[in-house]
Amino acid sequence: MRKRIGVLLSGCGVFDGSEIHEAVLTLLFLDQAGAEVVCMAPDEDQLHVIDHTDQSEMDGARNVLKESARIARGNMVDLATVTARQLDALIIPGGMGAAKNLSTFAVKGPQAEVHPQVQRIIEEMIAARKPVGALCIAPATLAKALAAHKPEVTIGTEVGTAAAIETMGAKHVACNVDQIHVDTALRIVTTPAYMLGPGIKDVAVGIEKLVRQVLEMA
Amino acid sequence: MRKRIGVLLSGCGVFDGSEIHEAVLTLLFLDQAGAEVVCMAPDEDQLHVIDHTDQSEMDGARNVLKESARIARGNMVDLATVTARQLDALIIPGGMGAAKNLSTFAVKGPQAEVHPQVQRIIEEMIAARKPVGALCIAPATLAKALAAHKPEVTIGTEVGTAAAIETMGAKHVACNVDQIHVDTALRIVTTPAYMLGPGIKDVAVGIEKLVRQVLEMA
Repeated sequence: MRKRIGVLLSGCGVFDGSEIHEAVLTLLFLDQAGAEVVCMAPDEDQLHVIDHTDQSEMDGARNVLKESARIARGNMVDLATVTARQLDALIIPGGMGAAKNLSTFAVKGPQAEVHPQVQRIIEEMIAARKPVGALCIAPATLAKALAAHKPEVTIGTEVGTAAAIETMGAKHVACNVDQIHVDTALRIVTTPAYMLGPGIKDVAVGIEKLVRQVLEMA
Repeated sequence: MRKRIGVLLSGCGVFDGSEIHEAVLTLLFLDQAGAEVVCMAPDEDQLHVIDHTDQSEMDGARNVLKESARIARGNMVDLATVTARQLDALIIPGGMGAAKNLSTFAVKGPQAEVHPQVQRIIEEMIAARKPVGALCIAPATLAKALAAHKPEVTIGTEVGTAAAIETMGAKHVACNVDQIHVDTALRIVTTPAYMLGPGIKDVAVGIEKLVRQVLEMA
């Protein structure tokens, strides 16, 4: 039986959604390993829309699910309809969407709220002892969701973000871009990806390790 | 000296822009091979905006350059400012944007017009004997641009599209997803990618071969 892995997207683009390279590399390594992928996202508007040429805010609203569908080539499900029972593992790519649309970490730091459906699916996965992977800034959202469990995560070596994660009650472990950190108690796997970069070939190394580790634990 | 490879994008999403997986895999294999990448796109509105969850047309305009910048993490240049002198090779990922925004092939078939800046850069590359790669449906736009030279291209095995390409004066060569076709006279390299798919691991094989072949000829 193929393992069924949820990939939780947060839009389409590093500055207001999922980081596209991280999301696509996650899909590549899952497919190469023979996993079945279920791409999912919350069905609601993004925090805002960012012009990716100059990082200014643009007019207009965009829906997180509809924009994520660009990465998933249309094969998306509404996060609200997915339960941990349907999945063997969950992976959350980074990009600012993971801290703008899946939680409010980008705006509120340690006082962030986690999106209720994101909180629910993460809690269900942990309760079922199913592994959860998170890339780049997504571990901050994961840390907030699991603060009561004192999770161990990495977002790389960025001191301010690491401090904010520790303020939320999690433990931050410094890590290079080609490494992963495994919290063996909670079964969560994190890698810095574009928190460190610098290039796509660099983030690919850590993301491939994360996907393999998550699949091994699934 | 690192080779400098132009990647011509057409938006961000398979149904109205660049196919995201094909674009990201092109960037991955170029980076792994040590190439320098210049992402470029026309600075003008897309033909239209497609909801990627149901393929319906959405309200609102989106700019090809700004949307492409999502794939390029902001590192974009306006196609109008790039000349073949600055590049060692050019690669055009697929997605319907390559036949909606770089030409009108998706709307007009063999009677398509090629975007003037796309026509210019392709002609400059061919005149300079610098290799051009094209993925998925992008070879149709390339075939139209180079019709006078009777180019050989592949878009896979789809009979209707192949016939339209031959109507434009090009030769179509059937090809599997893990293969490339090389027109040694014009120095153009094409691969079917998601014209055949079915999955990201499958298209990755042909795209990696295309990138290596283009770099070898560059």
